Amino acid sequence: MLLVRSRLVARAVQKQCQKVERRNYVTKVFNTPLSGMEMARCGGIASMMRLPIASSTEGLDACFVGVPIDHGTSNRSGTRFGPREIRTSSVLVREVNVATGATPFQSLMVADVGDVWVNLYNLPDACRSIKEGFAKIVANGCIPLAAGGDHTITYPILQAIADKYGPVGLVHVDAHGDCNDTMLGEKIAHGTPFRRAVEEGLLDTKRVVQIGLRGSGYSVDDHKFQLDNGFRVVPAEQCWHKSLSPLMKEVKEQMGDGPVYVSFDIDALDPAFAPGTGTPEIGGLTSIQGLEVVRGCRGMNVVGADLVEVSPPYDTTGTTALTGANLLFEMLCVLPGVKYN
Amino acid sequence: MLLVRSRLVARAVQKQCQKVERRNYVTKVFNTPLSGMEMARCGGIASMMRLPIASSTEGLDACFVGVPIDHGTSNRSGTRFGPREIRTSSVLVREVNVATGATPFQSLMVADVGDVWVNLYNLPDACRSIKEGFAKIVANGCIPLAAGGDHTITYPILQAIADKYGPVGLVHVDAHGDCNDTMLGEKIAHGTPFRRAVEEGLLDTKRVVQIGLRGSGYSVDDHKFQLDNGFRVVPAEQCWHKSLSPLMKEVKEQMGDGPVYVSFDIDALDPAFAPGTGTPEIGGLTSIQGLEVVRGCRGMNVVGADLVEVSPPYDTTGTTALTGANLLFEMLCVLPGVKYN
Amino acid sequence: MLLVRSRLVARAVQKQCQKVERRNYVTKVFNTPLSGMEMARCGGIASMMRLPIASSTEGLDACFVGVPIDHGTSNRSGTRFGPREIRTSSVLVREVNVATGATPFQSLMVADVGDVWVNLYNLPDACRSIKEGFAKIVANGCIPLAAGGDHTITYPILQAIADKYGPVGLVHVDAHGDCNDTMLGEKIAHGTPFRRAVEEGLLDTKRVVQIGLRGSGYSVDDHKFQLDNGFRVVPAEQCWHKSLSPLMKEVKEQMGDGPVYVSFDIDALDPAFAPGTGTPEIGGLTSIQGLEVVRGCRGMNVVGADLVEVSPPYDTTGTTALTGANLLFEMLCVLPGVKYN
Amino acid sequence: MLLVRSRLVARAVQKQCQKVERRNYVTKVFNTPLSGMEMARCGGIASMMRLPIASSTEGLDACFVGVPIDHGTSNRSGTRFGPREIRTSSVLVREVNVATGATPFQSLMVADVGDVWVNLYNLPDACRSIKEGFAKIVANGCIPLAAGGDHTITYPILQAIADKYGPVGLVHVDAHGDCNDTMLGEKIAHGTPFRRAVEEGLLDTKRVVQIGLRGSGYSVDDHKFQLDNGFRVVPAEQCWHKSLSPLMKEVKEQMGDGPVYVSFDIDALDPAFAPGTGTPEIGGLTSIQGLEVVRGCRGMNVVGADLVEVSPPYDTTGTTALTGANLLFEMLCVLPGVKYN
Amino acid sequence: MLLVRSRLVARAVQKQCQKVERRNYVTKVFNTPLSGMEMARCGGIASMMRLPIASSTEGLDACFVGVPIDHGTSNRSGTRFGPREIRTSSVLVREVNVATGATPFQSLMVADVGDVWVNLYNLPDACRSIKEGFAKIVANGCIPLAAGGDHTITYPILQAIADKYGPVGLVHVDAHGDCNDTMLGEKIAHGTPFRRAVEEGLLDTKRVVQIGLRGSGYSVDDHKFQLDNGFRVVPAEQCWHKSLSPLMKEVKEQMGDGPVYVSFDIDALDPAFAPGTGTPEIGGLTSIQGLEVVRGCRGMNVVGADLVEVSPPYDTTGTTALTGANLLFEMLCVLPGVKYN
Amino acid sequence: MLLVRSRLVARAVQKQCQKVERRNYVTKVFNTPLSGMEMARCGGIASMMRLPIASSTEGLDACFVGVPIDHGTSNRSGTRFGPREIRTSSVLVREVNVATGATPFQSLMVADVGDVWVNLYNLPDACRSIKEGFAKIVANGCIPLAAGGDHTITYPILQAIADKYGPVGLVHVDAHGDCNDTMLGEKIAHGTPFRRAVEEGLLDTKRVVQIGLRGSGYSVDDHKFQLDNGFRVVPAEQCWHKSLSPLMKEVKEQMGDGPVYVSFDIDALDPAFAPGTGTPEIGGLTSIQGLEVVRGCRGMNVVGADLVEVSPPYDTTGTTALTGANLLFEMLCVLPGVKYN
Repeated sequence: MLLVRSRLVARAVQKQCQKVERRNYVTKVFNTPLSGMEMARCGGIASMMRLPIASSTEGLDACFVGVPIDHGTSNRSGTRFGPREIRTSSVLVREVNVATGATPFQSLMVADVGDVWVNLYNLPDACRSIKEGFAKIVANGCIPLAAGGDHTITYPILQAIADKYGPVGLVHVDAHGDCNDTMLGEKIAHGTPFRRAVEEGLLDTKRVVQIGLRGSGYSVDDHKFQLDNGFRVVPAEQCWHKSLSPLMKEVKEQMGDGPVYVSFDIDALDPAFAPGTGTPEIGGLTSIQGLEVVRGCRGMNVVGADLVEVSPPYDTTGTTALTGANLLFEMLCVLPGVKYN
Repeated sequence: MLLVRSRLVARAVQKQCQKVERRNYVTKVFNTPLSGMEMARCGGIASMMRLPIASSTEGLDACFVGVPIDHGTSNRSGTRFGPREIRTSSVLVREVNVATGATPFQSLMVADVGDVWVNLYNLPDACRSIKEGFAKIVANGCIPLAAGGDHTITYPILQAIADKYGPVGLVHVDAHGDCNDTMLGEKIAHGTPFRRAVEEGLLDTKRVVQIGLRGSGYSVDDHKFQLDNGFRVVPAEQCWHKSLSPLMKEVKEQMGDGPVYVSFDIDALDPAFAPGTGTPEIGGLTSIQGLEVVRGCRGMNVVGADLVEVSPPYDTTGTTALTGANLLFEMLCVLPGVKYN
Repeated sequence: MLLVRSRLVARAVQKQCQKVERRNYVTKVFNTPLSGMEMARCGGIASMMRLPIASSTEGLDACFVGVPIDHGTSNRSGTRFGPREIRTSSVLVREVNVATGATPFQSLMVADVGDVWVNLYNLPDACRSIKEGFAKIVANGCIPLAAGGDHTITYPILQAIADKYGPVGLVHVDAHGDCNDTMLGEKIAHGTPFRRAVEEGLLDTKRVVQIGLRGSGYSVDDHKFQLDNGFRVVPAEQCWHKSLSPLMKEVKEQMGDGPVYVSFDIDALDPAFAPGTGTPEIGGLTSIQGLEVVRGCRGMNVVGADLVEVSPPYDTTGTTALTGANLLFEMLCVLPGVKYN
Repeated sequence: MLLVRSRLVARAVQKQCQKVERRNYVTKVFNTPLSGMEMARCGGIASMMRLPIASSTEGLDACFVGVPIDHGTSNRSGTRFGPREIRTSSVLVREVNVATGATPFQSLMVADVGDVWVNLYNLPDACRSIKEGFAKIVANGCIPLAAGGDHTITYPILQAIADKYGPVGLVHVDAHGDCNDTMLGEKIAHGTPFRRAVEEGLLDTKRVVQIGLRGSGYSVDDHKFQLDNGFRVVPAEQCWHKSLSPLMKEVKEQMGDGPVYVSFDIDALDPAFAPGTGTPEIGGLTSIQGLEVVRGCRGMNVVGADLVEVSPPYDTTGTTALTGANLLFEMLCVLPGVKYN
Repeated sequence: MLLVRSRLVARAVQKQCQKVERRNYVTKVFNTPLSGMEMARCGGIASMMRLPIASSTEGLDACFVGVPIDHGTSNRSGTRFGPREIRTSSVLVREVNVATGATPFQSLMVADVGDVWVNLYNLPDACRSIKEGFAKIVANGCIPLAAGGDHTITYPILQAIADKYGPVGLVHVDAHGDCNDTMLGEKIAHGTPFRRAVEEGLLDTKRVVQIGLRGSGYSVDDHKFQLDNGFRVVPAEQCWHKSLSPLMKEVKEQMGDGPVYVSFDIDALDPAFAPGTGTPEIGGLTSIQGLEVVRGCRGMNVVGADLVEVSPPYDTTGTTALTGANLLFEMLCVLPGVKYN
Repeated sequence: MLLVRSRLVARAVQKQCQKVERRNYVTKVFNTPLSGMEMARCGGIASMMRLPIASSTEGLDACFVGVPIDHGTSNRSGTRFGPREIRTSSVLVREVNVATGATPFQSLMVADVGDVWVNLYNLPDACRSIKEGFAKIVANGCIPLAAGGDHTITYPILQAIADKYGPVGLVHVDAHGDCNDTMLGEKIAHGTPFRRAVEEGLLDTKRVVQIGLRGSGYSVDDHKFQLDNGFRVVPAEQCWHKSLSPLMKEVKEQMGDGPVYVSFDIDALDPAFAPGTGTPEIGGLTSIQGLEVVRGCRGMNVVGADLVEVSPPYDTTGTTALTGANLLFEMLCVLPGVKYN
């Protein structure tokens, strides 16, 4: 008796376990999110955007993957539950991007591949396994869309990405530059990933932009490292009271045709829009500006992306996780190969 | 012994039970909200805006009425407590609209008439009783200002309104078009009221505007039904970074002199401003824009209005209910007959 | 057009505004709570136990009345919203006490008379108006069941009660003895009401019992004042791991036939059962023991009662307010004249 | 490239998608929960107890299944998210019941089969599909352990159960008898399932026990229907201050060898232990007593069970969902065939 | 054994108890916040911005001081915990204002001097002691940066300030004008401080600006008192959709060289940005505009400032307290004598 | 100008910075908590129990010290804020233990010494510095009362304790045995401290008792390691429905005269009493039983103690932190040298 043929039981499961092999048919069939019109949104296993759960990236053009850590955080923890909560919130996301016309699920084969294994008690070892995991994901060209986890994860992800693609351009949206040398004496933490990346040659430093930086700092030349290395730094103050679409046109030019990685720290947004995070700073971007930034990446050669620092214990209304889910969807929509109506 | 003559006991009750007959005096005397200067805001029974509670609409020019349902919701429920929580939050609303100069309580006889009877276990039957209840309210010209409840309620309200006034113009503020044909196979749910209304001829479809639509959708032509029927659709993206007052001037022209119904789904606002709702979508209107839209209805021939989808269990700080209460007050301020200073 | 004859609109209002005069009929008709079977619990104005709201105590045997203050609190404030939140939670209370067989609404004429006027910025003046308000309530024998507000309110209530009945016995359930001389130098605060009451001769001190006292204290003979005045003190430690029904039999004997006032501070209960209060102490009574205490007052000559210190901002799940509403119902059930099945 | 062979990526998925066919090996291999020792608890897709997700009950001895509805609730809604939140909380449950020695995952083949399809806008139709879904589950003897959802679900589940097994005995743990005839005029709602079940002959009424009933009621003979039909009714008051193990010995005798269904409404527990529910009543069972009741079912011929009325929006600390997950685990542990050490 | 020389124990204490005398060295050494790079942000006693705690203002150029009251509030209370929660949130603030280049901790000697003694049960007496406390603080020129507490505190602070400096200019950012004559009959409450200040000649009324006023009011000429006295009133509506930097240029001109007091009621900000307050009004300033206002005070002769009305019980995500902490830091940055890079 | 002589400003600071040297007077003067009668509880810097903050343990008989980490947690994190929140909650604790007669602040010199330095990104290094910090604390006999932090901290604390006193007896109250060999492959985590302690000979294993163990486990002989090493294990089931005072008499005998360490994991308590923790298990101890256990340690030779696993982000009402503060106070009360009345 196969329940999967019945309308009555376990529809979520039916869709979520549909065989990846379906795509081998002559007419390519893509995974699609389980529609809220078909199965109540409160029903079914909460996979990312209610997509099928895959145990391999074989045949996938892109995948959602979680990295559930918080031992890189310097203030409020809790980001270890980011992937799970973003999945839960993502049941509200539907198939088509009405605003931009993007139809990612009619263009790419996408699945939720679960979470990378992480050692919760040893941050360097977690970084090692994250790198190893992402190396497998990108090996045959699957584009990872990672849900953090704290921002430390971007360091090992970039290691895997650069191993595959060479130094990449970076669209980094964040309240903080995350280019400290050490934190409490440690080289690996959520405030240091991009200095490590520069040191290891993972970034094409002329093709790096940081958007939304703000907040008090440890010195008056808080962005010295970045500027010395040729990053473009766009403080939040330069973003106030206006659309960021013009900025993104310039950024697109800066990025050129080379591979680009997008790293979006949810604390780039003002805490009014994303309170559920560990190191919030007032005076930040609106979620509208966040959408403009990600939509502005359309046309870039995006080879990977992440959405980090959602901390569910501090996200009392679920808005932050919902925003994370939507931004991941928007990232998917700007991947190479997505068709627009 | 009548406590009502004493300053000491039960002042809230005194005001709230003041006889409707007072208006029959030669000099018309209107109901006024119990002032926070007179009785501590935390004191007294929480009627809408601390108005008298009436058991009939006799002699009323307008009334606040609750419709406490949530069985039309597709994601998070809880809107059944919307009316109660909006009443509780409304104790902060005062008598005069300082910004616009409107003095509704010196112009119209207004009361809180309680909640419509609803069958919580049978949505079509709830719709039937809502229609019947609103038919009585509008029978002699009293203008209902309804507090939802989920958006399903607008369908039976429009039935009652159209029975009285014929097809009406519609100012619909919402994140979603709510023009689906069915949801999970059902014709009646909170995503279908306006398609039902069109089918039944309740709307003057050339005088319909939808403001704030956004979010992912089920198809690329998500607004086809509306456009085919002549609605004006204003997606949220067209509202970003600007005042909506100019838009409302156009809308006023569109509405002309005919009867107009205003339906405001609180999820039109960005979840930063109104997190306590069931199907939030990021990138929405600000509460400032919400005020501009309602204030922009001044001069229209408004015959009814609703504020729906406030879900208190998800409104952790009370901001959403407070916003709902204020928008209902602003709706009252733009009713025909309200004097401005 | 009278809506009150319709099943469809404003049923809550219908019941809640039913004339008090109904009781003058030959066959006495009592106010009854609006049943959840008749009108959805989420519907209607939230009066106490969904009873009619009265603007006078004329004809009432007992009444619920709120005293919304928190300027007597020494730690967390918020009790000013106690009455409102207890009303909201009380919609779950039904007509009959199944466990004890009490049928209060078939025995007594009861209504919600709203809140006493209080000066939020001047505690002594608030006490003055509370006394004055309760004097009117008790003038013709109506028994007040007060919802606080912080425990300061019991002082002026006892003044009004003793003016009418002479010194009363006291069943005082609390984590604290509230017999301090001063707090921060002031004579009136929520930790001093019972010393004031003794000083003014409001209590028949041999007929006073304090149940549930615990927590750290300012001196090793923290209960000296009470013991010196002949109170019976039952620390929480004497209540652990057992039923309090045997204790209440002794208390009933202690109280004799004289008038008795019941004062229940919700912090008598352990914070597991009543977290929403200002000065919680661990190791307290269970709600079962709380029920046993109030039910154990049956047969006493109760002339007034209060339930104080519910602080809604700290009552994240609503359990504390719900407990308050239920204890007020149980107090009603033990009033003289209530029939038992 | 199969990620499933790697320690690094997507271990949750690996286990959760392991083939059901494994059990066909000579040495039977059972599904086991993904251990917290193996994969961080915050990692992986949240299936029930981190078990594999199955799209069919083929080969399963027992299954967890969700029924995500709340349109049968009379007060606070939100139970539609019960299954999802119980799954999330269940990541804390481990493989072995240390207290009782039960080793369910070394005795039975168990999986999470997702959620039954439900029509959120039509309660009778939801009941129809629930019945149909459970009919398939029980068809070949798989024992369903259902996570609600409100208590309405037990009615259609019992229909499916009785179709398979004939009238069953019932261990019903609840604050309410749920034997009303109608609610707001409707026959189907969360307060009526057991009257419906009696009327349709689904219960062996001499083998029914209701444990934990309490709270105010609509009449003094609130349990008349049950007593008239031969149920044993054990009010909460009879449970106070003692172990329920002796009671369960009697219940086991009452149940005899016939098929038994266990229905546990989380509001049987005191709101101190389970605040996240819709119609809480004070003075309830402790979670210890809840464990004693379920553990006391060992040796009965349990053919199905449910855990209902967990309402996540009101479960601010997650304790209620956690309790639900543990009670479902304990139910699994008392199923026929489970080995004890 | 002095732990202070060890890296291992109690670093927070070390810094926080460092002698004020250090500044007497030839090379002036200022107090600096304990860096998050040096000691984990979650560690150590939570003083304001992790500064040393001083028991005197001797040698201080500026100080942070708390005024923990809420008995002046008219709606939601809880501001008594404002100072404590702002301290807790302030651990995120770092040493340098990157956006403006201000280096306050390299320019001024600053410390946290704890809280003023307040009589919680007697508002006029609390005002008396607040005045007395601030008189000592300002006696030798130390500039107080006060954390409220409700807005009543500004009245006695202005008394102390004016005693020292004569009538002062006022930059008042607020949703409300706070110029009522009385509230519930009392002269002292959080809605009256500025009328009292005018009556007592504490303000140079031509040098007063009120920014952000909005919300419903008690009369159409709600700002009559202010306008009659020559205040500049800038309603929120005049602030919508634009930067407030141009406004602040005008304000700076208005203020001239005379002494200026800055009073920032957090409810000036929209509840999206600052939900944790007692009398929120929708349609308010953004936190960006709040920053612009405070930064726009640079160059004024600021002699004192306060940040009031943060109410932690309603600040579910901590954003409001965090905003309060940041605005206090920005106030520090515009004090006379602060060097800019 | 010394503010410390004034009643008006900064009383909290006055007491908290009072010189430790005071004790050198002929008549020994001890530190005492700042009384709530003297300074409003909401006022002043939140040190532990409002004690003076010391920068050294010189002259101290006992001290409170925080260890703010959460990178040893396996499920929900957040314990890094345990020390801070326990301090905040501890303002409710007063000077004398009324129930037991203990007068710790008239017997011992006690202070809050702040927090140990911890490396948030490297758990083994954090353990190293914790050990080093506690070595200094215990060097001259000061007894540390540690506030966690997760349970990992007990491992390095025991290292320091055993270095000073040799192998110690252990009263370990917990839901879990914490004797795993590894977690996710790591030797150091919050589930392994006591196995490490045994391996390193830090415990006198015949003088070890574990109280409150429960919950599902990884194997049927989950306590094998402990039993093999001679621990006494008291599962929660053996604690149900009774006082633990008799048990503690046995434990006292078991402990004899040798040095004893008390380690109290707040999850020993049922989540009804302590929801704010990371790995809650239902069916646990009551807070009454928790008090009985700690009070039962009176007369033992306690040389150190900790209260761990309070996780504020999950402690929505503050009850868990309050319980932690009270248990730390009770631990202080049973230290050698404390006088009883």
